Parts: sequence; C-alpha cells; structure tokens
Amino acid sequence: MARVHNFSPGPATIPTEVLQQAADELLDWRGTGMSVMEMSHRSADYEPVVAEAEADLRALLAVPSNYRVLFMQGGALAENAIVPLNMLRGRGVADYVDTGIWSVKSMTEARRYGTVNAIASSRGDAYVRVPKQDEWRPTPGAAYVHICGNETIGGIEYQWTPDVVAAYGNDDTPLVSDVSSHILSRPVDVSRYGLLYGGAQKNVSMAGLTFVIVRDDLIGHAHPLCPSAFDYKVLADNGSMFNTPPTYAIYLAGLVFKWLLARPAAIGRPELSPMAAMESLNVEKAQLLYAALDASAFYTTRIVPEDRSRMNVTFRLQDDDALTMPFVQAAAEAGLKGLKGHRAVGGIRASIYNAMPREGVVALVDFMREFERTHG
Amino acid sequence: MARVHNFSPGPATIPTEVLQQAADELLDWRGTGMSVMEMSHRSADYEPVVAEAEADLRALLAVPSNYRVLFMQGGALAENAIVPLNMLRGRGVADYVDTGIWSVKSMTEARRYGTVNAIASSRGDAYVRVPKQDEWRPTPGAAYVHICGNETIGGIEYQWTPDVVAAYGNDDTPLVSDVSSHILSRPVDVSRYGLLYGGAQKNVSMAGLTFVIVRDDLIGHAHPLCPSAFDYKVLADNGSMFNTPPTYAIYLAGLVFKWLLARPAAIGRPELSPMAAMESLNVEKAQLLYAALDASAFYTTRIVPEDRSRMNVTFRLQDDDALTMPFVQAAAEAGLKGLKGHRAVGGIRASIYNAMPREGVVALVDFMREFERTHG
Repeated sequence: MARVHNFSPGPATIPTEVLQQAADELLDWRGTGMSVMEMSHRSADYEPVVAEAEADLRALLAVPSNYRVLFMQGGALAENAIVPLNMLRGRGVADYVDTGIWSVKSMTEARRYGTVNAIASSRGDAYVRVPKQDEWRPTPGAAYVHICGNETIGGIEYQWTPDVVAAYGNDDTPLVSDVSSHILSRPVDVSRYGLLYGGAQKNVSMAGLTFVIVRDDLIGHAHPLCPSAFDYKVLADNGSMFNTPPTYAIYLAGLVFKWLLARPAAIGRPELSPMAAMESLNVEKAQLLYAALDASAFYTTRIVPEDRSRMNVTFRLQDDDALTMPFVQAAAEAGLKGLKGHRAVGGIRASIYNAMPREGVVALVDFMREFERTHG
Repeated sequence: MARVHNFSPGPATIPTEVLQQAADELLDWRGTGMSVMEMSHRSADYEPVVAEAEADLRALLAVPSNYRVLFMQGGALAENAIVPLNMLRGRGVADYVDTGIWSVKSMTEARRYGTVNAIASSRGDAYVRVPKQDEWRPTPGAAYVHICGNETIGGIEYQWTPDVVAAYGNDDTPLVSDVSSHILSRPVDVSRYGLLYGGAQKNVSMAGLTFVIVRDDLIGHAHPLCPSAFDYKVLADNGSMFNTPPTYAIYLAGLVFKWLLARPAAIGRPELSPMAAMESLNVEKAQLLYAALDASAFYTTRIVPEDRSRMNVTFRLQDDDALTMPFVQAAAEAGLKGLKGHRAVGGIRASIYNAMPREGVVALVDFMREFERTHG
C-alpha cells in the first residue's frame, strides 16, 4: 500500500524522508558495520549521535546556555510525577492551570507530592478555551506554575506565553510547560520558562523518549525518594547517560532535527529560521482546516477561535452519534487514518504535526466536502 | 562495510535477519501504509504487535498464568528503584545478595526506600564467584530477596536457582532477579521467582524497553509516592498502556521472540524447545571461548569455573596495561568490535548474547590466538 496520511495524535506521522534514511542505514550506520540500535551508548560510534541531536535541538530552539537538555524515558505521564519530584524543592505547593484532560493528569500525579492549587480553569466552559492570565489566582511562593502548552485531546493551545513575573510579582515561581504536542512547531522563547518537557512521539521521534529543557539553577533539588534515573541532577551530571538512554529514539530525533534545519531551504524560504518556517507551514495547514469547519454547518468545532490548536484540530459532525464512525472508516479507506477523537471526548481529531504535509490537509478537506455532500 | 561481530555488552548485537525485516517494513508495516513507529498505541493496527509480543514471550519462557508481563521504560537502573517502590509492601526491609557492580547499584537505589540487608557477598573475593546459598544470612520477614542473575560487568552468573523456601523457612519472601543480561539465553522456571526484570537492550530488543514478569499477588502494594507510570498495578490494569509504551522497541522485541521460536527448526533440532536450543548454542559458544582462555597463559580469567557467565566473558591479557588497548583496537580492525571491558574493571569483555553467532566466537578465538602469537 502507498503511504497513507496519518492523523494519529501520537505516536504520529514521521517525515517519509526520515524513515527512508533510517531504513537505508538500519543494518550499517555510516560504515560502522552495525545498526545504531546495536551500538553501546558509551562507544565512540554512538557519541556523535547524541551530541549532534542535542546540539541541533539547541540550535532549533535557541536554547540559552544556562539551560540543560536531558533525554529521559517514561513519556509525559511519567514526567508528570518527575516534575514535582524535582521541582517542588521542599516548598510543598505548586500551581497548575487547568485546560483539559492532560492538565488534570498532571495535577493528579503532582498531588502525590504536595499541594496542588488549580489557579485557573476552563473546566466550567467545557475546556473550549485557555484561561487568560488575569483569571489566575497565583499562590505566593508556589514552587512553580504548570501549564499544558497544547492540550492534545481537547485541541486548545496557548498562543501566548504567560508572564509569571507579572503574575507572581517576582521571578521566584518558574513557568513549567508540557509541550509534548507542539514543541518545534513554532518559535519559543525558552528563557521565559523554567522547564519545558514532553514525550517525543508527536513532533520529535518515536515513542519511548522524553525531552526536558530545564534552567540549571532548578536542578539539584530532587525529593529524597526520587529514583536516581529520574533525578535531573544525576541525568545532567552524566550527560543523560546515567542509565542506558533510548539510543535509537534519540537517533531518530536527530534525523528529525536535521530535517527541520533543512526546511527553510526546502520550501524556498532560506531567509526564515527553521521554527519560523515551521510556524508558517503549520499556520497555513491549520487555517485550511479551520476555514473548512467554519464554512460548514455540517462540521462544528467548539474551540474559541483565539485558542484553537494548530496541532490537534477537534470537531464534530452534525449527526455525531450516527456519522462519526462512518466518517472515520470512509476516511481510512481513502488513505486518511487516525481521525477518531480521543475516547474521552468523542468526535473527530485531526493531528497535523510538523510531518503532516499540506497535501494531507488538502486531502482531508476534500474528503470532508465529499462526505458532507453525500451524508449532509 | 560488511556487518561486524559486535561484542558490546548492551545495547548489543541483534540478529541480522531481524534487522533486515525491520528495514524492509520500516516505511509500511503489513500494508497499513505506515511505519510501526507511527502507529497509535491504541490503534487496531498496533494491537496485534504488543499482543503477539507478550504471547510469544510467555510461550518462550512458559510463563505461568498467574504472572503478569509488563512492558515499561527506564531500564534496569530505573527498575532498581521501581522494584522496592512496588515490592517493599510496607515491610521496610529487603534482602540483597551482592555479586558485583550491578548488585551494588540495585542496593544503592533500594536503600532510599527501606533497610537493605546484604545477606551474602562475594566482594571479599573480588566478585569472582557467586555466594552459595548456605552463605546466606536471611532476614526473617524480608519483603523480598534480590539477586542479579548475571553480572554483566563482572561476568559471573547463577547456574542454579536459589531455594528461598528453604532459605527463609516459608514462602513469604519472594525471589527477585535482575535478568537483564541472560533472559532468554536458557530455560528458566518462572514459578521459582516472585519477579524477574531487566532492560531489553541485551537479549530482547533495542534500548528503551524494560520487561517485568511478576506474580500477580505481589501487584497492588506500591509505595504512596510511586509515580503511576511505575506502579505495577496501574501498568497491569492497563495492559502496559497507562502511558504510551515504547511501541517500536516492543515491535523489535516481538521480531526477536519470533526469531527465537524458529531457532530449533533453523538449527535442525526441532525436538528442542527454543530455550533448550538457545542454551545448547550458548553453552557451546561459551565453552569455545573459556577453553581458549584456559589453554593459554597469555589470557586469564579470574572467574571460578562453576560461576562463569555464558553471556559476558571477562578476561585479562598477560601485560594488561600495555596490551589491552592494542588488543581492542586490532580486534576492531579485524571486525570484532566492542571488546573493551567496563571502565570500572578494565580488561576485556566479550558479550556473546543470543544474537552472536558461533562464527563470531570462532573468529574471536582465532584472533586471540594470532594476537598471542604476535604479542605473547
């Protein structure tokens, strides 16, 4: 079968060029006579793989030199516990902004280690929007304030960066964001955050790799019961090699980073930074899809326009119960896979990460029009 | 370059047939139009991947039905903390047998959560042997007793299974073994253990996957501060899908399991079980190498014969300081890679896991003879 357009929320589509390179060198990487999968993580052969991956990620996001990049395991759900284990620093209270199911999961894990204050929530609005900063009720002295930069399930995204100095009246409560599902899709000013983290399986690599970008003064304060393998200081001191890292997932991330670095030239916009190029492509893809939703009474999205996610577009069909599964099935038969919404919310979700080409979105919009014509 | 013989301790050599299949289907798995890496872990496409992997692992090891197979992340070093977090069950004391560097790492992590009693140790003998069971000084009521079935760094291996009922006078202290580096290399009677665990990157798959085989009555007693993603009950209740599992590493493990299931027929011994076939091959490989060591005064191994590892063969050269690096380098030039001993112990280590063919060991023995002739 030809490669389909894969709208899965994660694990998710990976650039075909990246997969082709991985396949080509799977049995013999750069003449070493072995697969990257088979290399000792401490070997001279593997060392450039992880070094280049970190350097390229730093270049893509302009990570300041006082931030450490850590490669970990366990995904965002494990990190939801690892963040408070490292970041509570004995203070006992952390603030969370509640924007949906992933925020709730993060709070649930954090409550095990201290007091969690939900300082703002759009739950009362069925999570169709991101609370504005003037709705926050900050806890003075909170160890950190946690947001979910993009809610993968609900389909809302921060289009702005919270100003925690203004919110707390000082710079003592760092901003933490779960950026699993929108990292590398747009420019980010890392210096506005104390910590960014996420699972790799959406915009970075295969599943099994977690990335953490953390300001170095926040490292070294882990809870006494934090396992060494999840203590940021242990990881940082050992260059993410305290335990064997997920070596092949890091290699694949490195291929994706090089693909991103090459995007501006590939799209004929060499004057753009890679993140500006990706943002322009992602805005265009999202607008195509949201315009189709807004132009139709057959499809509806509940998300308020200013908070709509560029990565995960959620919508419903006119006769939701009767038509959702036929839509998903007919789409799959047309080579448009993974469109079923999360079981907790239903409906349709089209995840259009970096690796989803514009043609994929055009094909989806065409399919939607045809489905409306025949079922509307 | 042709594929080399890779003696790395982990990540380690993977069967060439497995890598070839992975490369062939990397862009399109079974006509789905996508890579296994890209599939949602909850999709109908991926479901058989994890289901077959678990079923095949159960078949290979004859795992009893009252044991759960869990696929996790973090490797053995993370599991060194996750085991006491789940297995101390409020008792406060666990027993450990100390056979080398990996035992010490396990004890170091466990001490964070309770009292660790080293009930036997071969440290005084420079870890050249496994303490016999009559040397154990068991702690009555210990939550569990932990062994490292094969010490990857030192090169010693249990050739027997401890009888914990005899040692403790009851069946209330289950046996836990870190089997990272010898799982699937020989038959194992799972029912003699409460829990077996390990990182996959030696005999099972690529790095980034941890396997746990645990008796079901031992599940459900996690420490209140255990992250959900590492709570055996949460994992078991969700079929290892509480968080996104390392989907591609599980797929690769599944290919390795099918390769193992086919071994008896492939070697013309269809009457053998896969584990009996692997044991016979692994005994033969290890004997070839140890016979070469024993026949030479130029090479020496300190490990007592009855405790020698079949998986990790450690030895030294006559003029250790001067000749170790030239040996490692000349071997690599001859296509025999990854032979440098662990930095903590020096010398040479040849890891000859399941995927190392007999020809690789023969080539190493031939190289050793030639090196001795020219440097002895």
